[in-house]
Amino acid sequence: MATPAEIAAMRRGLELATRGPASRNPQVGAVILSASGDVIAEGWHRGAGTPHAEVDALSHLPADAARGATAVVTLEPCNHTGRTGPCAEALVTAGVARVVYAIDDPGDREAGGARRLRSAGIDVEGGVLADEGHALLDPWLTVRRLGRPHVTVKWAQSLDGRAAAADGSSQWITGAQARHDVHRRRSEADAIVVGTGTLIADDPALTARNGDTLFARQPVPVVIGTRPLSRDAKIWQHPQEPLLFATYDLAAVLDELADRGLHRVFIEGGPTLASAFLAQGLVDRLLAYIAPTLIGGPRHAITDIGVASIGAQMRLTIDQLLPLGGDVLVVATPESAVH
Amino acid sequence: MATPAEIAAMRRGLELATRGPASRNPQVGAVILSASGDVIAEGWHRGAGTPHAEVDALSHLPADAARGATAVVTLEPCNHTGRTGPCAEALVTAGVARVVYAIDDPGDREAGGARRLRSAGIDVEGGVLADEGHALLDPWLTVRRLGRPHVTVKWAQSLDGRAAAADGSSQWITGAQARHDVHRRRSEADAIVVGTGTLIADDPALTARNGDTLFARQPVPVVIGTRPLSRDAKIWQHPQEPLLFATYDLAAVLDELADRGLHRVFIEGGPTLASAFLAQGLVDRLLAYIAPTLIGGPRHAITDIGVASIGAQMRLTIDQLLPLGGDVLVVATPESAVH
Repeated sequence: MATPAEIAAMRRGLELATRGPASRNPQVGAVILSASGDVIAEGWHRGAGTPHAEVDALSHLPADAARGATAVVTLEPCNHTGRTGPCAEALVTAGVARVVYAIDDPGDREAGGARRLRSAGIDVEGGVLADEGHALLDPWLTVRRLGRPHVTVKWAQSLDGRAAAADGSSQWITGAQARHDVHRRRSEADAIVVGTGTLIADDPALTARNGDTLFARQPVPVVIGTRPLSRDAKIWQHPQEPLLFATYDLAAVLDELADRGLHRVFIEGGPTLASAFLAQGLVDRLLAYIAPTLIGGPRHAITDIGVASIGAQMRLTIDQLLPLGGDVLVVATPESAVH
Repeated sequence: MATPAEIAAMRRGLELATRGPASRNPQVGAVILSASGDVIAEGWHRGAGTPHAEVDALSHLPADAARGATAVVTLEPCNHTGRTGPCAEALVTAGVARVVYAIDDPGDREAGGARRLRSAGIDVEGGVLADEGHALLDPWLTVRRLGRPHVTVKWAQSLDGRAAAADGSSQWITGAQARHDVHRRRSEADAIVVGTGTLIADDPALTARNGDTLFARQPVPVVIGTRPLSRDAKIWQHPQEPLLFATYDLAAVLDELADRGLHRVFIEGGPTLASAFLAQGLVDRLLAYIAPTLIGGPRHAITDIGVASIGAQMRLTIDQLLPLGGDVLVVATPESAVH
């Protein structure tokens, strides 16, 4: 059982973790508690090539000051010598008596830190505030598990699943609150992906806007497809440099995004691209903004996802039903998605 | 302002009203209060050709017992001599001092009762518990206003608006709770309508079932279309005799149903029939059972409703979002529907 002081330290660690960049490396925080439960050092990871959170925390202490202390870390200490040394080893050397952490490191190479610590006689407890830890590291954990970014597919549709009228017109199917929600979520993503067809048809800015102002954080715009883009396309004004992929190999695109530290990817369409990601099982979360309207006809929000017979349907878990003005946001997870 | 005793009497009147049949005639209840606010008589309407609720209530009193009393009625007293005399006249003759009612009678011939009462010096107050009155008489009011039944279109769909997989298979898209909800609502309808295509493809029983038992109240099964039906179709086992309409004139079918006192009509599909009712503006309420699944492909729950451009979309008001097991029921009203 974790003590109240350890739980408080874990909350602090989760807070410290968010000071680091959300990128290729996990956001991790660490707090060192004295034997009497007082905070004697704090640390967090500042990104690839810099010390891990535990090592950062220990670095603030004089030699031997951590002897008999408890290290509270948001992620299982690594047991891997990468650009920095293994944290488990550093904690053993520092002489800590106990290590408390929130979530297991699922990496093939990095895991095993807890085992290493225990073999050195250190008392180890994992799973403390695990839910909060997962909420923080979910995209990064997905990358670790799947070897690809966490993918959210977003679309707007009428109740009957259409994205536009027969002539292609689609402006203002959803209302202001739904559009604001999209922009806020865009600002939390690392990359926002569209097909060349949508870029040519709609000329979207692909920025995350709070009314007329840009959010401080902007996703990298990513365009997939082979149709040539106009020099005047609004995307060229985006504060982040666009990435263009003249390919339909979606898995390869995601690999490249993961390598670039773009772990939270937002697929915005059009319908063909969104459906292709779904058909290939590359989707972790769905955001369907449903407008209270019927349209009928041939312009579907989701086109073909390769379901020939009903046994092959893509069952979902609905995580949230969120009324947004007159619209409803359905947040869902494919049942096949890895958790 | 209605007094507490009058409001209580109106609640009682609404309860009494439901004892009468829901059919060609409205369900109406009446309560007579003495000058001191005590209930001295109750009545309700038992169907076409029988006394209206006010007259029924008055009939329980000795002559002159209603002099100076207050009549509380759920519907504006009629001013029309049909198979029974005008109720307004009967109330004047009885010498009541005050009449309280819930909702106005929208009929061309029947309305004017309140005016007649006032011209006789009676104190009249309408609109008491009007919402509850509307809830009770909504289907009947629609018939009065539109000259056609109240039409509910029901369908089940995947989140992306499909009713079946590409090969037509569709069993168990929605779960047990959603199916139970459909059967309960069917039992409250007067008629349940399908196209011949659906009847031939699915051979539905079109009964309202509570598990394996039939509900006491069964809608009349109605089949629209020109394809010949099998002698072995389950519909021939229905406790109510099926009505067959070998026509695609939907307005004519609804006229005939109204004439037969079938005022609450439930359209169950298939997609072509449901879409035709929608396209012709003949729908008052939508029930879309959304299953947490994606299917894609060509089998739409709603096909073509004549929306060429987005300005012609059929905007809805969502009245309810009801989770049913893993499914969600959307209850909605077309914004163009008459209220």
